[in-house]
This record gives sequence, C-alpha cells and structure tokens, in this order.
Amino acid sequence: MADLHRFFDNVARIEPISDPDGRLRQLARVIADFADSLLARPADMRARYALAMDFLEADPLSDLLSAQSPLLADSFSRAPDLLRRFGIAATPAHGRDIMLLTDALTFSRTLHASSPQLQLDVEGVVLSHLRSLPTGAVSDDA
Amino acid sequence: MADLHRFFDNVARIEPISDPDGRLRQLARVIADFADSLLARPADMRARYALAMDFLEADPLSDLLSAQSPLLADSFSRAPDLLRRFGIAATPAHGRDIMLLTDALTFSRTLHASSPQLQLDVEGVVLSHLRSLPTGAVSDDA
Repeated sequence: MADLHRFFDNVARIEPISDPDGRLRQLARVIADFADSLLARPADMRARYALAMDFLEADPLSDLLSAQSPLLADSFSRAPDLLRRFGIAATPAHGRDIMLLTDALTFSRTLHASSPQLQLDVEGVVLSHLRSLPTGAVSDDA
Repeated sequence: MADLHRFFDNVARIEPISDPDGRLRQLARVIADFADSLLARPADMRARYALAMDFLEADPLSDLLSAQSPLLADSFSRAPDLLRRFGIAATPAHGRDIMLLTDALTFSRTLHASSPQLQLDVEGVVLSHLRSLPTGAVSDDA
C-alpha cells in the first residue's frame, strides 16, 4: 500500500514538460520506474501474485485483494487526475486501465525475472498505450 | 500447448486485408479472441499462473514453465512471421513481446475475472502496441 502512495506522491512532484509527446514519455518513464521499484522486491511480488491466485476461489478474501481493495479503489480514483496533468483527457476507465496494465506488466516481469531474454519492455508498452489515449487540456490543479 | 498451436493455425487461415491499419485491427481482434478462448477456462488459467508462481523458486521446473519451455520457444519463433504477414517489420524481440504482452493481459483478466468493472481491454492494449511497431512489406509466404 505504501508503494502506491509513494508512487502518486512522486508523480505529483514531477513538472510535466510542455512538449505533448515528451510529457507522455515522462509519464511512461515514471510508471516504468514504479514497476522497477516493485520488481526490486521479487519475493514480495511472487508472494503477492501467488496469494492473489490462491485466494481467487475464496470470495471474501479475493474481493479484498482485487475489486474491493481499498488500495485499488484509492489508486483508481487518483489515476485519472495523474493522466490529465500529463495532457490526457482521461476518463475513470482510462485511469483504471493504466493501473491494471502496469500491474499486468509487473506480473510478467516477476514471472520471467530469471530469464534476461524474456523481459517485457514496460516503458515501451506503457508509452504506446498512453499515446493511444485522447489528448486534452493540461490542468494545473490535478 | 494445443491452445497455442490452434492459435497459430487459426491466424494462418486469416487473409490480411489490404488497408494497413485495418490489418492491425484484424490481428488485434484475433489475439483478443485467443485470450478469450483461454479465459473461457478460468480454472485452468488460475492453476497455470499459480503453478508458475509456486515454481519460481524451484529452478529446473521454473525454466520449463517459462524461459526454456518448448511451448514458449515454439511460439516465440513463429510470432515474428505472424506479425510480418500483417505488415509489421517484426524482429524476434517484437514476436516475443506480443506473446509476453498477451500472456500478461490474460493474467490480469484471470485475476479480476469476478469483477466486471476491472476488465482490462485486451484488444485495445494489443492494438496500441501493434500500432507502435515498425511497418514493413507484407510477405505472402510467412
């Protein structure tokens, strides 16, 4: 939980540059750095994903770890404002998707951590995704 | 293993249309259909990802399930030709990445299967990724 709070605090301190595509590259880099900070604790990540899978069958726990997680709810509600600061006309669904995508990529990197040749390019995939989103006015107060 | 062979056989039967972006949308649709066919067997997917996580610590088994998997090696070697047929100047790394990304998205959908509001858009994410790849001559004999 502390990880996600730290991530949003770090992003809030970054000043988006004026170049529209440069801003997206800035944001993709920050998101990739966040994934790297998670991947620096591989045992924690293995445990987290293994637990999530094990608990999928146990409904009450499963919800706490996914849909109804206070952590996820908080990050999903903050993510659209984050995207808007970087020039994306973000809907709540866009905010949710960038968080889900980042988690999916972190899973892939966790699963293939011991295989240097199977390292998915988190920054590249995130940047392609960000570039596909609608652009909009950059708001200063997000 | 049968899943992946069927996927490549299905793709081989599809005639890429002439419109360059239309072809990419065709391919994204086929990849999303493949993910859907995996997601139609949620218990198998849960077991697969749980096993992969559990075995991460056990080196010989882990390699068989990821880096050294005969299944993965085969799909990674076939994927670049698949991308080339749809107009992408694909390198081996591009082929590997599209397979890893598809698996990562399938994991996300498996993890959040019971939460209708947490369904990552596999087709949309894959299409953004495909559009970011370099285009090249469409080869007929791939």
